[in-house]
Amino acid sequence: MSHDYIRDGAEIYRRSFAIIRAEADLARFAPEEEKVAVRVIHAAGMVEVAADLAFGPGAVAAAKAALEAGAPVICDSRMVANGVTRARLPASNEVICTLDDPSVPTLALTIGNTRTAAAMMLWGERLKGAVVAIGNAPTALFHLFEMLDAGAPRPAAVIGMPVGFVGAAESKEALIADGRVPYIVVRGRKGGSAMAAAAINALASDRE
Amino acid sequence: MSHDYIRDGAEIYRRSFAIIRAEADLARFAPEEEKVAVRVIHAAGMVEVAADLAFGPGAVAAAKAALEAGAPVICDSRMVANGVTRARLPASNEVICTLDDPSVPTLALTIGNTRTAAAMMLWGERLKGAVVAIGNAPTALFHLFEMLDAGAPRPAAVIGMPVGFVGAAESKEALIADGRVPYIVVRGRKGGSAMAAAAINALASDRE
Repeated sequence: MSHDYIRDGAEIYRRSFAIIRAEADLARFAPEEEKVAVRVIHAAGMVEVAADLAFGPGAVAAAKAALEAGAPVICDSRMVANGVTRARLPASNEVICTLDDPSVPTLALTIGNTRTAAAMMLWGERLKGAVVAIGNAPTALFHLFEMLDAGAPRPAAVIGMPVGFVGAAESKEALIADGRVPYIVVRGRKGGSAMAAAAINALASDRE
Repeated sequence: MSHDYIRDGAEIYRRSFAIIRAEADLARFAPEEEKVAVRVIHAAGMVEVAADLAFGPGAVAAAKAALEAGAPVICDSRMVANGVTRARLPASNEVICTLDDPSVPTLALTIGNTRTAAAMMLWGERLKGAVVAIGNAPTALFHLFEMLDAGAPRPAAVIGMPVGFVGAAESKEALIADGRVPYIVVRGRKGGSAMAAAAINALASDRE
């Protein structure tokens, strides 16, 4: 059976973004936020995600400036790191994921937290001014607050898009309420590595 | 500000799956399908995905038998490949993604199709009896039909979960209608690498 389908990747993107802009309610977003919203919706395959997106004041500008200045992108999972399109990054920025470090399993037992939370302790001074992308674990967001409480350096912005049924919604509301770090969030249970990476890809370049 | 949250990864899984089983409508699934459904819903953060899941006759049994016999998992994207939990695979199965092969960009231009479709031409005989996981590109599913038309070996099963606004829904309906390959599909625009990897993780082991 033969199928007629679009084989041009650039044309698929163009048509996808046109459909999103025709269907999604994007009116409440500033222009630079709208571009992030379109890419996150594209990754999710759901225009209704527009209603769940929340941008902290100045978050898009802070994240873009950090990336342009060469800040690293620090990810909570390999899937987020793999979803970041390296060619879009403005300064060959480093993309960091420490989850596979051999010290992580033991560290997790020592601190009594998830492997994701343990892996964050390896970020060290690289966190200063970085753009953090959380697409998997709510514990990463909660642990970030604890690290900031303990004097960890502040990132330039946090993409807070953990997904799931236990803690995800609560961790994102906590990020919004915390106030210490500019945030871009998908509220509620929805989220995931594809959406977090899409947000980074939108912040990295104005090219669509 | 201190937050009370669950720090035990296994307990987060247990509670998440309990919430899914309490909220999602899973009654129409066979027991072995239900386990796949729960993991896909978990990855999506959306119980409503249950309504979009479609299992071809015998698809779960075919995929499980193939994995137990050592068949490779062939993925359309690195994000899917990264989402497969190696420790769950029953036979140290190979996880293959050919998208980064240096020949892919030129091959895509030659065949006038996406890089994803071009990368599939490098699967070769490894496709025979494999479990294919498509979590990104609708063109991968459409191109799979063309490869089968041209005499490519048949996979044991296809996880068809591309996401998006152009071709995704159509490619999955085509997979269901095609009839040549056992399928597990999320109908419509929703899908993605996390859901495709979650399906593989559920098929790989009965452990929850």
